[in-house]
Amino acid sequence: MTVRDEILGANERYAGQFDKGDLRAPPARRFAVVTCMDARLDPAKFLGLAEGDAHVIRNAGGLVTDDALRSLVISHHELGTQEAYVIGHEGCGMIGLENSHMHEQLGPAAEGMDFLGFSDLDEAVRASVRAIEESPLLPDTFRAAGFVYDVGTGRLRPVS
Amino acid sequence: MTVRDEILGANERYAGQFDKGDLRAPPARRFAVVTCMDARLDPAKFLGLAEGDAHVIRNAGGLVTDDALRSLVISHHELGTQEAYVIGHEGCGMIGLENSHMHEQLGPAAEGMDFLGFSDLDEAVRASVRAIEESPLLPDTFRAAGFVYDVGTGRLRPVS
Repeated sequence: MTVRDEILGANERYAGQFDKGDLRAPPARRFAVVTCMDARLDPAKFLGLAEGDAHVIRNAGGLVTDDALRSLVISHHELGTQEAYVIGHEGCGMIGLENSHMHEQLGPAAEGMDFLGFSDLDEAVRASVRAIEESPLLPDTFRAAGFVYDVGTGRLRPVS
Repeated sequence: MTVRDEILGANERYAGQFDKGDLRAPPARRFAVVTCMDARLDPAKFLGLAEGDAHVIRNAGGLVTDDALRSLVISHHELGTQEAYVIGHEGCGMIGLENSHMHEQLGPAAEGMDFLGFSDLDEAVRASVRAIEESPLLPDTFRAAGFVYDVGTGRLRPVS
């Protein structure tokens, strides 16, 4: 059985019991989450989100990159969110990831590319929170806070 | 009760029953998902993902942006994924979103910024699939496929 077959089978079961067809696009709880793509993280579960509650933005590191900021600006201005939670996690593959290592692996195609590895997890989260707070594309009333998720315990720890 | 209190309360309940502390970072099912930040989408639920199964990358539109590609490159080269599923959705706020509308709302701070709205949903998904297939940063053996999720029915429809 291929992954494609597996996910289509799982989707068939989900759709068969689906009762959320009347949700509206603006997040009901008016917040956004920025977190890592890491497979061990299920933000809907560890934050208690139902379908329709909150925007979820994810990338390698859970960083407020330019693209995450594009998403947050649309989240706020088009869909009414008023705050964002940035959630890094212990054991993140981005801790200690060096551009030179990636460039060696990938060759000329990756020349000049910044993979955005970091050395200090808490500080990376705080820098992302600051990127939101200082963005001229979001109003001062848009709030942001940072947490670190522990993949060993499932628990969040505030860092800002 | 603030959102912060609510999510910390929900997290306390999750952590209290947590039994996934020994998962490893490489996704067990060796694939990645790229989908939209939309609040109505819970990809873990509609694809049948458990913690540890797959990377999940999300942004406004579920597009393979440069940042999503950065994440996919790390996903494959550092953490061993072998395929990606790009999942757009009906009723996406990015359908018909014009840069001129955003620039008017945001003023000079957004000058020149591309918010990546699109007019044709299926084609936007296919373009993202092509961006993966054609990237010199991923090997030819890395597969990609596209789907559209229907927020009215919970069902996936293949588009590539």
